[in-house]
This record gives sequence, structure tokens and C-alpha cells, in this order.
Amino acid sequence: MAAQVDSAFVRSVYDEALLNGHCYKRLGELCKTVGSRLSGSDNAEKGIRWGTAMLKSYRFDSVFTQPVMVPRWERGEVEELYFSSSVFNKKIKNQSLANYDCEAFEELPLKAVKQHKIPAVVLGGSVGTNGKITAGLVSVHSDKELDSLGKAGLLKGKMVLLNRAFPENLINTFAAYGSCVPQRVNGASKAVKYGAVAVLVRSMSNRCDLHAHTGVMMYADSLRKIPAMAVATAVANLLDQLSREDAGLRISMQLNCRTLPDRLSANVMAQSNGTKAPEKVIAFGGHFDSWDQGEGAHDDGAGCMHAFEALRILKAVGYKPKHTLRCVWWINEENGLRGATEYARKAAETGEKHIAALESDRGGFTPRGFGVDSAFLPVMNKYKSLLEPYGAGTIEKGGGGADIGPLRKFNSNVVLVGFIPDSQRYFDVHHAETDVFENVNKRELELGAAAIAVMIAILDQELE
Amino acid sequence: MAAQVDSAFVRSVYDEALLNGHCYKRLGELCKTVGSRLSGSDNAEKGIRWGTAMLKSYRFDSVFTQPVMVPRWERGEVEELYFSSSVFNKKIKNQSLANYDCEAFEELPLKAVKQHKIPAVVLGGSVGTNGKITAGLVSVHSDKELDSLGKAGLLKGKMVLLNRAFPENLINTFAAYGSCVPQRVNGASKAVKYGAVAVLVRSMSNRCDLHAHTGVMMYADSLRKIPAMAVATAVANLLDQLSREDAGLRISMQLNCRTLPDRLSANVMAQSNGTKAPEKVIAFGGHFDSWDQGEGAHDDGAGCMHAFEALRILKAVGYKPKHTLRCVWWINEENGLRGATEYARKAAETGEKHIAALESDRGGFTPRGFGVDSAFLPVMNKYKSLLEPYGAGTIEKGGGGADIGPLRKFNSNVVLVGFIPDSQRYFDVHHAETDVFENVNKRELELGAAAIAVMIAILDQELE
Repeated sequence: MAAQVDSAFVRSVYDEALLNGHCYKRLGELCKTVGSRLSGSDNAEKGIRWGTAMLKSYRFDSVFTQPVMVPRWERGEVEELYFSSSVFNKKIKNQSLANYDCEAFEELPLKAVKQHKIPAVVLGGSVGTNGKITAGLVSVHSDKELDSLGKAGLLKGKMVLLNRAFPENLINTFAAYGSCVPQRVNGASKAVKYGAVAVLVRSMSNRCDLHAHTGVMMYADSLRKIPAMAVATAVANLLDQLSREDAGLRISMQLNCRTLPDRLSANVMAQSNGTKAPEKVIAFGGHFDSWDQGEGAHDDGAGCMHAFEALRILKAVGYKPKHTLRCVWWINEENGLRGATEYARKAAETGEKHIAALESDRGGFTPRGFGVDSAFLPVMNKYKSLLEPYGAGTIEKGGGGADIGPLRKFNSNVVLVGFIPDSQRYFDVHHAETDVFENVNKRELELGAAAIAVMIAILDQELE
Repeated sequence: MAAQVDSAFVRSVYDEALLNGHCYKRLGELCKTVGSRLSGSDNAEKGIRWGTAMLKSYRFDSVFTQPVMVPRWERGEVEELYFSSSVFNKKIKNQSLANYDCEAFEELPLKAVKQHKIPAVVLGGSVGTNGKITAGLVSVHSDKELDSLGKAGLLKGKMVLLNRAFPENLINTFAAYGSCVPQRVNGASKAVKYGAVAVLVRSMSNRCDLHAHTGVMMYADSLRKIPAMAVATAVANLLDQLSREDAGLRISMQLNCRTLPDRLSANVMAQSNGTKAPEKVIAFGGHFDSWDQGEGAHDDGAGCMHAFEALRILKAVGYKPKHTLRCVWWINEENGLRGATEYARKAAETGEKHIAALESDRGGFTPRGFGVDSAFLPVMNKYKSLLEPYGAGTIEKGGGGADIGPLRKFNSNVVLVGFIPDSQRYFDVHHAETDVFENVNKRELELGAAAIAVMIAILDQELE
């Protein structure tokens, strides 16, 4: 085929994706036969075996793995959170819960009992409780409030609910996430300075519901480590209210999560060799690890399948790449970034030149376009009109990404590109039990793979 | 507030929609306390009462109804479709169904039985069977194939499966729908000419699954009326294959659907009076009736709630309209268009001038933009950049719509605008039992209402 990215080429890519797509079926296999893929877990290794064999069946020029040591944290068997509140029990008896504005409460078990079980999940990296912790609860909505209450001595011996909610008026939900996620990542170490015994973190989600969303948390080295759990948004609202209404509110937590020694894992790659400059690489992919809730379908099974499918499509339509096109499934993005770090280090060590890298880690939703390095923005002007009829013509300044970022450290000229799908539903399922195959739409996923295949061909044509 | 549509105004509209939105909650009430709203049904009338009271609670300048006689077709209590196939039973016994490529079959009851019940729904407007019909099946994929087989006498006494599938490579799913829907609407009369005794129509859907999608069908006046049912796409694939493999394949159908005398119903309206030219009207809305499958959540509860919410938002942000802004819920779009026809006729009769009309009937998905009359396209150039940061900046030539189209007949100058949300998931649920509130995303719905509110203000400012 003519090495030209024109409207006929774009059409052929989309036809292949939509009429003969493989990514949806493969994502279904990954989600249903492997499931979640937390770094260091047996399941992640099972997934790597599945993926390597699957990629080999397509007879790309090569399929290989790159060894990476990854951290190994386990949720453990005991993961319990309860609250007891006489005020809440009285309200249940009086059937006066109507003032809680989230309808999700209707699903909560609303019998007056001594202890109410709370839908909650421990955050990744948390220490366990070493027995049961029981304490009162203080709810805070900002770092300022945390500091103010802490300095007044009001957090001593308490559990702290870090309850800053997503600003729902931000159109891009990733911006809302970015504004709240520091409380999840660093909140425990902030609270422990004031004598808190544990933290609960409001789930990072746009929805008001009963699903708890996990995610990574970290401890400041110099400080004591206290356990940290995520509670569902609807529960955060409830606990916030009860913490003000009931001085007798008590929370009990019991966890036996633990960190084990690092384990050998791998990045997985498949590539089509370049026909003109095979020594130069365009890497594109997502992360293969996931949290241990749900099936890692959108996060980031979708990104891995996008990359595999883009490579397959370009081969299927007969595209002959100038440079080597490499689909990469990075390991350990969620809690360590070891895969991406090792990938970039190894490339620098061996002198392998990356001219561009593209990341898909925003789910398998309808494409809107791409974020690209500012240096590459002018080049994209001539391709915008090719992508617009497919709904993927929004080209923005951007291009960062956790897994491709490290390449920049060793090579300031690498062009970085981020795939941008519609963001509205992503945090409904992100890191939660609802991130399952059933919540991925076939056409939306396929359109993403097609847009990425076109973008890779553009990079291949435009870069030297 | 300054009568100017600028970035601050757009921001205020989106803030109101996303931080203080009412449409999602109201759609939930409509779907869960009323449910489906087939024209002429008691449920539709219940919905009109609910809606009128709901709108009145917002103290708009006026809320009123317009009487409309609507058709009344009922599905009846008996709706059965079975097939019997010794070939299929043998395959089940040999566990050799793997060659059916849709995984949905795994959900089918796969015991070897004399008669297999088929997930199917009768099409709106169909006659009943007057007892049970049993016949062989012929599957056709185009009008040409239908004519060819018909002329060869091969359809005589048969049921015909009209099995043209959505062209999945069309990016806009409405284009795919448009290319297939004639077989649903007119297929029975085409088939009866060749002696067919009934038709089965492949569901109008992008998905391969077990949900049957209903919709309107019509009979040519001069021809005999034969019954028509929709079968799920996965079932259409199965029957297509069996019709070729098993000469003994037999289909049995029994229906007691019926058409009753017309019934009095109504269009429902709420409006904010214009402050400069109250005699000139901008109408915007969707259709209040739905099919009797699911809850009419996306089709078109979403459009009705968009329009109500747009009116509410403009009032809430203090926008003073020059012209009268009227939210209209047209009745009977699905099977008669009586509401829209009467609305336009009455406007012409009373000399009420409509300067613009906007329709939302493509579901409550993430907005992409608007289709507008070509005469208004140049005006939109100056507003495109205001809508783009909200993802709604795609402005296309268009603007038709079933419910606003009749206004053009009496007034060639009326500017017609169609709301365009993302189309990928619409036909997954359209006219099926899956068109329920749970499949509507809160933020996606709210973003649509905000985009429509902005568009209405643009029309109000730009038109005289």
C-alpha cells in the first residue's frame, strides 16, 4: 500500500476495526479468563502468559517480554469496616432517613443493628491494622481544614475521613480526579502528623453510589504508617453527616493486608519491524497490571487491546512502516511504575532510539482525539480534517502519560502522544468492582483502536 | 443578566447543569414511577399528568397542554414465537454449536426440545395472527434477494426473515439505522406480494445479543396484512443459518395484538415568555411517547428532560429571553406523529410565529454538537469556540427532526436545529427492554441539557 495517510487509508483502517475487529473479543477473554492483574499476583503472571500466547498467534515480526521486578502488595483475607451510631439507629427506627440526598442509601442494609458494615476497600500499599482499631471519626474537606483541626488537637486518636468531593462542574473528569487524588495518595501521612489512627478516603468517583474505589497510597518515610481505606461516595456523605450529628459515632477497622518481597514480572511487547529505519522505534500501549477490584477492563485492559489492535490493523491493511512499530504492555503502572521505568532505562542502555510514544490509559470510550507535544501540534493541522469525520479530530497540547513519560528522561526529542477518549464515564468504574468487560462498549473500543492506528501511521510518516 | 452569549454565560449554564441539575432525578421519576408511554396507553396519560404537575412545580410563566387524538395499538397478552429444528437439536446433543459466532447464544436455553421459544417482540402496528401460524422460513438480506426469491415462487406460504444487518463501518449509527429501517417499516407489504404468511425482522441494533427491538411498521393499503415481529440480532443469525441447514425448520407464531379506536391525548408545554417579542416562539423538546419496551429512557425521556432542564437552567441563571422559549413534549412520534402535526397546524391556524425549533431525539449521551439549517451555519461560526471547550463544538449542516419538521411546512423561515450526542450506544437500547434509566449516565444527560440551553440562547440572541 502507498505509504500515505490519506482519507482512503483512514477509511481502510476504520473498516478493518469495525468490520473485522479483534480487540473486543480479546478483551473479553482477558477479563473473563484472567480477570484482575495486580502487580506481583499470580493472576498478573497468568495474564502475561495468556497475552504472550495470544500475540504470538498473530505472527507479528516478534513478540517478546522484558523482565521487571515488581512490588507485591496483597489485600489479605480480612477487610472489614463497621460503624456504630445510636443516632443512625434511631433514624432507622423512625424512618427519617429521607434527608440523606443520595438514593444509593436505599440499597444499604437499614436495620437498626449494633454495627453497620460499610462498603469499603483498603487502599493499595496500606499497612494492616494488627488487630482491630476502633475510634471516633472526624470528616475533613480540605487540607486547610485538616491542618486547622489537627493543630487544635481534634484529630488525636481519631479516624479521619478525607472527604473532598469531585468538582462536578469540571468537564474533563480527569481534572476533577487530579484535584482530589492527593488526599488518597498522601492523606494518611498528613493525618498521622496530628495523631490520627487511620484514614478513610472518599472514593475518587463522579457517581454517588455504594461502590468503593481503591488506588495507590504512599507513606512519607519518616512518619508512622496508619491504615487507609476507600469508602463509597454515598457512604462518605453518610459518615460525614453522622460525624456531625453523633458524638458517639464509632468506626471499627480490621485489615490484614501486607507487603511481600518483590517478584519477577515482565513488560510484554509485539512489533512490526520498520522497512526503512528499523532501529528507530514508535512505542504505543497501555499498562497490563490493574487493581484487584473488577477486571481491569477499562483500566487498562482497553489500552492494551487498543495497542494490540492498532498493530494488527496496520498489518491487516498492508501498511509497511518506515520505523519499527511496537505495541507495549507496561507492567506495574498502578503501584510502582516499574515497567515503564525499566523500559526507558533499558532503551537508553542499549541505545535504542524512540522517536515517538503513545499511551492509552483513559479507558475504552468513544475517541475525541489526542493530546500531543506542542512541537508536533503544527504537523497535526494537516491531519485534523482526516480524523474529524470519525469524531477523533480534537487535537490538544498534551501528550504526557505515566508509562511513556520516563522515555523523555533519556531522550528529549521523543514525541509523546496521549489518546483522549470521552471522559464522562471513566471514574464511574475506575479501580472499582464495576470495571468489568460488560461496561465496555464494542464500538467505542474499536473506534479507539482505529484512531490510534491512524495516529501511529501519522507519526511513522512524519517523523524521521 | 447581560443578554449576551459569552464564555461567562456558557460557564454559568454548565455550572447550573452539573452542580444543581434536575434532569437526571426527574428522568428517574419518569422511568420508575411511570415507565413506558406508548401512545394511547393509560401509562402515557399517567405520564402526562406526572409531567404537567412536575413542570408546574417550577413556576415557569405557563404550563399547558394541547389536545391531540392519538392512535391506540396494543401488543396484547399473547406474543409467542417458536422454532422447531431437528438439526439444531442434534447439534445441541453433539455440543457442536461453536460455529455460531455470537457469544449471546450461550444465554439461549440449549436443551434439545420440540419447540424453542425465541426472544421476539411484535412490531408496532402489526395485525395479530388469529390463531397460530406455522410455516417454513426463508431468510433474505436485501430487497433484491426478496424480489428474486419471490418471483421464483419460493416465498409462498413461508415466513420471511428480513435479515439485512447494520453496516457496522458507518461511524454514525443513525446512518446505519436509516439504511436498514425500511425493511422493518415496509417489509411485510413487500413480502406479502409473494405470498408470505408473516415476516420476522432482524432487530435494528449494532449489538449481537438476545434483546428484540420493536418499532413501527406499516401496511400498504391495497395489500393483505400479515403479522410482523422483530427478533434479536443473535437469533436472526441463528435462524438464518438454520434456514439454510434444515429444510424441516418450522416457525410458529401466535399474536393477539390489536388496534383500538383513537384516544384523546396531549402535547405538554412549559414556557418562559419573551421580554421583547413574546409573540415569537422558539420551541424545543422531544417526544413524550415511547415504545412499550423498557422505560423510554433514552428514547425519548432524555430529550424531554433536556428541554425541561434547558428552560429551568436559563431561568435559574437569570437569562431574560427576547422571544418566548417553549419546552414542548410532543406526543405520538413513534407511531403517527400526531402531536407534531397538530402542533404545527395549530401554530399556523392561530398565526403563532416560530422563529426556531430544536429537537433532541438521539438519546442522553455525551454531546458532540448540533445539526443546523444551512442558512444559520455562518452565524454559528462565532459560537463554535464557545462550545468547543465543552465538547459540543461540532456544528454540521442538518437540523431536521420528525417533531420539528412539520413547522417548516407552514413557515419556510423557521430555523431548525437538531441536537447531536455521541451515537455509538443508542441502538444498543433503542426500542428494547434495555432502554431503562440505569443505562442513562447522569453527567452525559446533564451535559446535553447545558449544550441545548446555550444553543437556545444563541437562537434567541441571533434571530429577530
